[in-house]
Amino acid sequence: MSAKVFENKHIISMRDMNKEDLLYLIDTAEAIEKGKIKPDMKGKIAALLFFEPSTRTCFSFESAIKRMGGEALLMKGTGSTSVQKGESFSDTLKTIERYSDIMVIRSGVEGSARFASEIVDIPIVNAGDGANQHPTQALLDLYSIRKTQGSLENLKIGLVGDLRFGRTVHSLAQSLTGFHPEFFFISPPHLAMPSHIKSGLAREGIKFTELKNVEEVVPELDIMYVTRIQRERFADQEEYEKLKGSYIIDLETIKGAKAGMKILHPLPRVDEIATAVDSSPHAYYFDQAENGVYMRQAILSILTGVVK
Amino acid sequence: MSAKVFENKHIISMRDMNKEDLLYLIDTAEAIEKGKIKPDMKGKIAALLFFEPSTRTCFSFESAIKRMGGEALLMKGTGSTSVQKGESFSDTLKTIERYSDIMVIRSGVEGSARFASEIVDIPIVNAGDGANQHPTQALLDLYSIRKTQGSLENLKIGLVGDLRFGRTVHSLAQSLTGFHPEFFFISPPHLAMPSHIKSGLAREGIKFTELKNVEEVVPELDIMYVTRIQRERFADQEEYEKLKGSYIIDLETIKGAKAGMKILHPLPRVDEIATAVDSSPHAYYFDQAENGVYMRQAILSILTGVVK
Amino acid sequence: MSAKVFENKHIISMRDMNKEDLLYLIDTAEAIEKGKIKPDMKGKIAALLFFEPSTRTCFSFESAIKRMGGEALLMKGTGSTSVQKGESFSDTLKTIERYSDIMVIRSGVEGSARFASEIVDIPIVNAGDGANQHPTQALLDLYSIRKTQGSLENLKIGLVGDLRFGRTVHSLAQSLTGFHPEFFFISPPHLAMPSHIKSGLAREGIKFTELKNVEEVVPELDIMYVTRIQRERFADQEEYEKLKGSYIIDLETIKGAKAGMKILHPLPRVDEIATAVDSSPHAYYFDQAENGVYMRQAILSILTGVVK
Repeated sequence: MSAKVFENKHIISMRDMNKEDLLYLIDTAEAIEKGKIKPDMKGKIAALLFFEPSTRTCFSFESAIKRMGGEALLMKGTGSTSVQKGESFSDTLKTIERYSDIMVIRSGVEGSARFASEIVDIPIVNAGDGANQHPTQALLDLYSIRKTQGSLENLKIGLVGDLRFGRTVHSLAQSLTGFHPEFFFISPPHLAMPSHIKSGLAREGIKFTELKNVEEVVPELDIMYVTRIQRERFADQEEYEKLKGSYIIDLETIKGAKAGMKILHPLPRVDEIATAVDSSPHAYYFDQAENGVYMRQAILSILTGVVK
Repeated sequence: MSAKVFENKHIISMRDMNKEDLLYLIDTAEAIEKGKIKPDMKGKIAALLFFEPSTRTCFSFESAIKRMGGEALLMKGTGSTSVQKGESFSDTLKTIERYSDIMVIRSGVEGSARFASEIVDIPIVNAGDGANQHPTQALLDLYSIRKTQGSLENLKIGLVGDLRFGRTVHSLAQSLTGFHPEFFFISPPHLAMPSHIKSGLAREGIKFTELKNVEEVVPELDIMYVTRIQRERFADQEEYEKLKGSYIIDLETIKGAKAGMKILHPLPRVDEIATAVDSSPHAYYFDQAENGVYMRQAILSILTGVVK
Repeated sequence: MSAKVFENKHIISMRDMNKEDLLYLIDTAEAIEKGKIKPDMKGKIAALLFFEPSTRTCFSFESAIKRMGGEALLMKGTGSTSVQKGESFSDTLKTIERYSDIMVIRSGVEGSARFASEIVDIPIVNAGDGANQHPTQALLDLYSIRKTQGSLENLKIGLVGDLRFGRTVHSLAQSLTGFHPEFFFISPPHLAMPSHIKSGLAREGIKFTELKNVEEVVPELDIMYVTRIQRERFADQEEYEKLKGSYIIDLETIKGAKAGMKILHPLPRVDEIATAVDSSPHAYYFDQAENGVYMRQAILSILTGVVK
């Protein structure tokens, strides 16, 4: 890994990692999945601080640490914590630091994980901080893409759905820039990819096209990455109801796809992918969830120094 | 085990198991209790999905997996889950499948565990689905009966209390049919054993007698199985108050019992067994709870293929 | 350990332990911290029953058992328990006894842990019973004092803040009596050390002085033990607001302190110690929290017979 990430021992933002870092993490996840390395985390404790609910991310980390023989301390919500007694977030972190070897933080507040990394001396993993970053999701997405396509280089990738509020697709687009991708952004106009992401890609010389309709580009794609149109991001519920069905992927939609094209989705799914697609060879989203466990095993074992 | 259960790798209903299956499970529980086999579940993860609260069943499974060196992922209620984000039950199951090796499901909805077994590829254990089945309770009851009586054959068994809504006594009565029991059903008329259970027993040639009063039959019994008269099953709270004290077992009640007669109860108890009975040699309900851990160790280790 | 504690296998109250017991526990905690003994709790299960919320005490026990390879069963609050179904506290204890090897109890009701120790046959640890006792806190405080001062003998100890309701300072004062301490009690008049504690100390010939102002005694102290002025102990919120800032320790306060003087605090802190103090060499409260894990490892491993 690059000096920066390796020395800091934190995973806070995709922007902190270079191509070499990404490949090191992906290679380690692969080696763990294939049983080539078996990190032993016996006696090691990961504190999982989920101030915001997220069943699957929390379960994925829990499964990862426990499959390696380590243990988890779970703090969910703030209901049963010392926060109620008037304790500061900083004191909570400095105390839990003494009970654990690595801390995974999920919070609704942007910058929480970065703040934590400045307060404590143990490694911090950002498991999502509001609308900002969710780097371990981006990393498992990259692992899933490489596993299915053999390489991250020169891929044609469609991003479908809510590209405005979906932090997952932002992180993914940014982290692929070093690998010469071509992007297709398919979204309702209201939920288009933000300008700052597009101008960033343009600066890097990355080709991208914006489309309203996914069908026209399906035959070209290696990866179709679909996101949920999240109800909670809409102030206006009528607008939500109008848009939510616009980008439903069904068997008809993917008819002309290449044999190796895979559909990814960060889950949970509402109805943006028809369940009939689940049994198609293109469906990859549940495998992608499983890949998350291998990637998180890699992250936890590297940051604690168990894998070097 | 019979082909059916062995191949499916699920424990959903007592109706799926034949005599051979039951004895195999009981023998395995006994071997684990006696330390003759020590299943090693290291690195194996049991997802415990308790959509309905049940402290003791959940703790019993947790204790079982952890005593064998395995680990648990706990999902309690639906409060902190992706269900809130609009995810289907089916997607929740298919995702958690990727994080675990076996799934234990407790739900208020009949058929949940059966449905799960059709959706996922890992073993499913039904830990109670509404008023329907609770097979692991029936199995630990059978283990407790054999352990105290030496055999399951030719026993005289009294079932006392709420025989109408108590799924435990239904499962128990059905699963004993292969062992030539004689039953005594002791309940208020409103809470009598349902006709479909009685006609089923009659078809199998099983002898049973219905009584209003437990005293008259006490000297004959090998097992007295007492159930709670559950407040939550009554629409009319007055009727509950009137009936709840009718079938209280105290030291007076069991005066003429055989030396080896044991009192079982699925717990929690409210006041249907006087606490004075706890120190009697007939009291067996807390030992029965402990037997649940050995039976669940047997179930988890057999279904995951750790014990063969 | 003394016959009493050793035979009973419980830690309920500081009053049950003599000087020899205390030193045995402290020596064991030290040996565990230094890696001289490595208790193996594999397959052993600690039931952590936290009927009252307490994140850090619960995490500390969880970390302790898991660092030794053991496991925890967590019961928090009473929301999801059989208590809702009308079960008695006694039956809950007798059932959980069958799922675990040692039980840690936190409750708002005085005497809960003592009651439990009379009901079940496995070891009980009191993790705080209302305003009464919190012996594992007192034990980790003693360990912290000895670790920083080299000995528990002949120390000058200031107790600052709420000395009336703070069970921590009561237990600490009582448990130090065998080591010839000199105490300074610094508190608002309304929150002074209770008479029964003071007369107890007087009977033992322990020197103590009551002061309103901490500054005048700072240069003499080896240990300054600061407590939170707990909002929940006040009926009158105005009185709380008036008093809460009275005993704030900042860098100015501790200017003339001895080089080795250490500030302890049971945490959580609200604002009784300024955060600027955290980076001073006198600040010891987060180390103290870490010491809690070693002390609880000692307690759990001694009571279960793993360490002898």
